[in-house]
Amino acid sequence: MHALPALGRFEGLEHYFGLRVYFEDTDLTGVVYHANYLRYLERARSDMLLAAGIDQRATFEGGGGAYAVRDIAMRYRAPARLSDELVVVSHLSALRPAAVIIQQRVMRGTLLLAEADVEAVFVSPTGRPRRQPAHWMAAFEPLVSKGN
Amino acid sequence: MHALPALGRFEGLEHYFGLRVYFEDTDLTGVVYHANYLRYLERARSDMLLAAGIDQRATFEGGGGAYAVRDIAMRYRAPARLSDELVVVSHLSALRPAAVIIQQRVMRGTLLLAEADVEAVFVSPTGRPRRQPAHWMAAFEPLVSKGN
Amino acid sequence: MHALPALGRFEGLEHYFGLRVYFEDTDLTGVVYHANYLRYLERARSDMLLAAGIDQRATFEGGGGAYAVRDIAMRYRAPARLSDELVVVSHLSALRPAAVIIQQRVMRGTLLLAEADVEAVFVSPTGRPRRQPAHWMAAFEPLVSKGN
Amino acid sequence: MHALPALGRFEGLEHYFGLRVYFEDTDLTGVVYHANYLRYLERARSDMLLAAGIDQRATFEGGGGAYAVRDIAMRYRAPARLSDELVVVSHLSALRPAAVIIQQRVMRGTLLLAEADVEAVFVSPTGRPRRQPAHWMAAFEPLVSKGN
Repeated sequence: MHALPALGRFEGLEHYFGLRVYFEDTDLTGVVYHANYLRYLERARSDMLLAAGIDQRATFEGGGGAYAVRDIAMRYRAPARLSDELVVVSHLSALRPAAVIIQQRVMRGTLLLAEADVEAVFVSPTGRPRRQPAHWMAAFEPLVSKGN
Repeated sequence: MHALPALGRFEGLEHYFGLRVYFEDTDLTGVVYHANYLRYLERARSDMLLAAGIDQRATFEGGGGAYAVRDIAMRYRAPARLSDELVVVSHLSALRPAAVIIQQRVMRGTLLLAEADVEAVFVSPTGRPRRQPAHWMAAFEPLVSKGN
Repeated sequence: MHALPALGRFEGLEHYFGLRVYFEDTDLTGVVYHANYLRYLERARSDMLLAAGIDQRATFEGGGGAYAVRDIAMRYRAPARLSDELVVVSHLSALRPAAVIIQQRVMRGTLLLAEADVEAVFVSPTGRPRRQPAHWMAAFEPLVSKGN
Repeated sequence: MHALPALGRFEGLEHYFGLRVYFEDTDLTGVVYHANYLRYLERARSDMLLAAGIDQRATFEGGGGAYAVRDIAMRYRAPARLSDELVVVSHLSALRPAAVIIQQRVMRGTLLLAEADVEAVFVSPTGRPRRQPAHWMAAFEPLVSKGN
């Protein structure tokens, strides 16, 4: 079918997700507003879960819970501009029963624009940390890597 | 290359642009927040310009100006949810020296979720309406259609 | 107490809500991105409900439902810039069992920047239109006006 | 005048800025989407500059430059929900010729929701780090504190 949304994919243990910069992403200084990188990173993580066979919406709507970001460390290295084609490269660097740590970087070609360490905790619908579903753990275990 | 961002295309005089719904797009009612459809529509219009060979960033950075939305009429018909694959279908319904009118609809499969009429005016860097560049006009002229 | 959030108020049948433009609101053209006016309008409508004694969160969390925007017509007249102090002036122009129509304008001092007609429908948690709560109707009835 | 936007203020060396949570800020899990805290923090920093007598817009429009966030570390401790009244408490913990470090926390009453360390670099219109204006330095110097 035509006009599919962006879909990333794994190459080995790294997940690649492409996106483009639109007017909504920029601010008056002419570059992407810093908070919007967190939106890019989350899109890439959601796409990584999709590519790993995980359906976040079904788990959430079934009352199972969802991830909540607990910690994020962002380092901005170079700006992005309107129409830029960016790639978010992500890998799972740690997996625990109720949490994951994901390292991500935003690239334009071979240039590093930003990098982040993100810890997300799985929480129940009322916000309490809980073990993530067994099939999520099973999907993630082969994807954990230490490298960068 | 892997991980390309979403890229739409023309089929006849209609432009198709795919996108996916992420957490950032939803609100606590569980569906896409109404204002975010305007972001989707703008992405599709920018992609339509790209597909028509127009480089908005070069024109803007060269001091030529940019479009500003003057009027928008949105009708919401059905909600969108996390992970939905949507398609924005757009066509140019009128072209004037300093303005365009674009009709757009947001679809999930064959279901109409929202539709919009958007009038955008070309403005100088100081915000005054001005004629759009000749090569923009030339690119748009073959794309104008009245149908829906 | 110090540092209260912005709180609007009614003057007669018109509700006034102040806000300031931040970096997040602008785009690379130097002015407020058009979709962000819809966020401003929604803040003002939510504040109007607060001022009318309506607790949207309690109704939603109690399973009662929430408003969904069905139609919006926006006309942009002049741009807003970083640090601008804006006022959104809103009034209820029609009230029906399952819907409201609200007219809103965004002002900077005496200058009209944008105006909108918004129709919001009250929907159940599964998205079906339903009658809004009786105490919402009772709160709104004295506020309906036709004028501008 | 009625309907003023939120305006924070200093108490000693700490700056307090109030805001309310709207629909736009939440996601389908019912709480504030994590990236939106960065928007809150930036509003508070901009308000802190206003309160210190600094006009970011005048400096930017005069070609002087603007801050760009270089590093941010966010720790999320408890969620925020629709209509919550939040306060962002900020203080300048370091000042250098071309950079500032600001520590911020987001509170609901006495409950800590999130805290952040933000390093912002002053950059020229073309994005190169440069000394911040002398009157910015002069305004900031009395505000630097180490405490929390």
